Amino acid sequence: MEQNVGSRVPTIVDVDLGNRSYPIYIGSGLLDQPHLLQRHVHGKRVLVVTNTTVAPLYLDKVVSALTDGNSSVSVESVILPDGEKYKNMETLMKVFDKAIESRFDRRATFVALGGGVIGDMCGFAAAAFLRGVNFIQIPTTVMAQVDSSVGGKTGINHALGKNLIGAFYQPQCVLVDTDTLNTLPDRELASGIAEVVKYGLIRDAEFFEWQEKNMNALLARDPNALAYAIKRSCENKAEVVSLDEKESGLRATLNLGHTFGHAIEAGFGYGRWFHGEAVAAGTVMAVDMSHRLGWIDESIVKRVYNILQAANLPIAPPELMTVEMFKSYMAVDKKVADGLLRLILLKGPLGNCVFTGDYDRKALDETLHAFCKS
Amino acid sequence: MEQNVGSRVPTIVDVDLGNRSYPIYIGSGLLDQPHLLQRHVHGKRVLVVTNTTVAPLYLDKVVSALTDGNSSVSVESVILPDGEKYKNMETLMKVFDKAIESRFDRRATFVALGGGVIGDMCGFAAAAFLRGVNFIQIPTTVMAQVDSSVGGKTGINHALGKNLIGAFYQPQCVLVDTDTLNTLPDRELASGIAEVVKYGLIRDAEFFEWQEKNMNALLARDPNALAYAIKRSCENKAEVVSLDEKESGLRATLNLGHTFGHAIEAGFGYGRWFHGEAVAAGTVMAVDMSHRLGWIDESIVKRVYNILQAANLPIAPPELMTVEMFKSYMAVDKKVADGLLRLILLKGPLGNCVFTGDYDRKALDETLHAFCKS
Repeated sequence: MEQNVGSRVPTIVDVDLGNRSYPIYIGSGLLDQPHLLQRHVHGKRVLVVTNTTVAPLYLDKVVSALTDGNSSVSVESVILPDGEKYKNMETLMKVFDKAIESRFDRRATFVALGGGVIGDMCGFAAAAFLRGVNFIQIPTTVMAQVDSSVGGKTGINHALGKNLIGAFYQPQCVLVDTDTLNTLPDRELASGIAEVVKYGLIRDAEFFEWQEKNMNALLARDPNALAYAIKRSCENKAEVVSLDEKESGLRATLNLGHTFGHAIEAGFGYGRWFHGEAVAAGTVMAVDMSHRLGWIDESIVKRVYNILQAANLPIAPPELMTVEMFKSYMAVDKKVADGLLRLILLKGPLGNCVFTGDYDRKALDETLHAFCKS
Repeated sequence: MEQNVGSRVPTIVDVDLGNRSYPIYIGSGLLDQPHLLQRHVHGKRVLVVTNTTVAPLYLDKVVSALTDGNSSVSVESVILPDGEKYKNMETLMKVFDKAIESRFDRRATFVALGGGVIGDMCGFAAAAFLRGVNFIQIPTTVMAQVDSSVGGKTGINHALGKNLIGAFYQPQCVLVDTDTLNTLPDRELASGIAEVVKYGLIRDAEFFEWQEKNMNALLARDPNALAYAIKRSCENKAEVVSLDEKESGLRATLNLGHTFGHAIEAGFGYGRWFHGEAVAAGTVMAVDMSHRLGWIDESIVKRVYNILQAANLPIAPPELMTVEMFKSYMAVDKKVADGLLRLILLKGPLGNCVFTGDYDRKALDETLHAFCKS
């Protein structure tokens, strides 16, 4: 673990994407360092997109960080209702309305201040407003800090499926002030840990082992443990995204458990479970299926159950979910190609996975029936 | 003029954009040559986006062109209401609804069959659906064939301004079957000619002179004259777009008259005038202003009036437009940068223009007052 993790000097993880490369700043107290943000603001006008929960906590702080010592910049804000169920076109239009009423132009910068929902919506708004303006991510949840704010996937949900409308659109920078986690509810903290576990399972066995040893420290919000988990997660994500920005293949592996998870989110009702909760249950299902296919040892299955339980995450879908509901929502997943559903499944020793449509359909059926009452 | 223009062998204009390059096929009877379209369809599923006017005329023909001798491809269609006033988010959602209900995946191809409104909406839908699927443009109006289908500008209107939400997103190919113009109403034909005139004014004096001599042939729908005007327009557009895809500067010159024109479209009510009619009046205003600035000779002003009148296009905005309306809508134009409105103005001999925010505000005021009663 690096010495400066958790200190006021930011750890920097670079996302290497040629002329769309950008830094992720990670550390404590970073919102008190205006120069970090200001160097990435082009033009004179900023729109902060946030929600009713985060605005009272951090909006003033962010406005100060954007304007301190820099009187030529003016900041507007739009405060959206909080929650996955508002991640839709109707809410997105409020961002466009505000930007247009305020006469923002192409030199504007949009700032996403909040969790994954805010980051995805603000990013898509930035991609589409005047066909593209700059944006900056200030993620305030573990979920957003370790996963959704990095890599440029933006978008909104459709009633029939998750994240079906959106854009690949990279930010100018991601600023992770770990102090913002002090106000995060326990259930949301756990939700983010589901994605941390994912990185271990798909490509980083050593990180998974670290998590097994440090789960209590993470749940107790030990600053060093959290900062390390965020940094290591961002490094993993940055590496994958640099190799496959538009998800031709490798990047899809970041979606371990997400095809099952997205079906849960859409079927159970957006927002009833947090994204990471649905992903946790989905990960258990993907791991179960991998084992049924004979691709992993039972010991891995057990370790996955154990670590997710230790993180207070669900290890089965909600009872309401049926086999038919899973099949119906999984059919509109973005990883379907020419009608064939491709899945991320574990294969081989811990830390290895495949993205494939070449699996026995019987195993999928068995997994669905094992986890659903009907 | 090339020998094969107007014949069944397509003229091909290439849009050179590195790995996003694509051909524009121009000619008569091209929808009877299935191989032209089919070579650009990836995957097995196609969604044709069209409108209530064009569908009865050409939808069956396009479905045949997509499927003849190629039974593995299946085609769905979505038929939108016709007109600029439907170029909004509500209508766009119908395209997403259809694609998702039909369980289209990332290997889908969207086909825009219609005029500029359909092309812009289908293109934006293709850009955003699952964060991007392939699309093909089959423009059926002069406006779309000479301008809007080429270059990847896609988007929708907002109540407060034209084309404020969208994406730069290039098609796989543009197929211009000039036979589709046989069913185009005279007023729409003239509307498209406004953009043809534009290319002459901003960069191609020789083409402008050709238009002065051949306007009657164009209005009489002489196939060779139309095919030549389309080809020459596409060549001009392809050249500009290749040099400046994302509109850092040069590409903005294609918007001669459009800042005034967009204000007319939004202020007068989307669809009451065709886009080209608003652009024609806007071009007259831009030319008037250029002359007030002392940047062009009066002879050019006269020639612009003459050619637009010969094309039966408006040479002044609707009476309803006031100076204040122009100012208000022009303030949200995409060419505003840090509060400064940049305009495309003619400067020098015929065929030369500038894109600049460096002009005397008095000239703009005088032009607005000269063309508005209040």
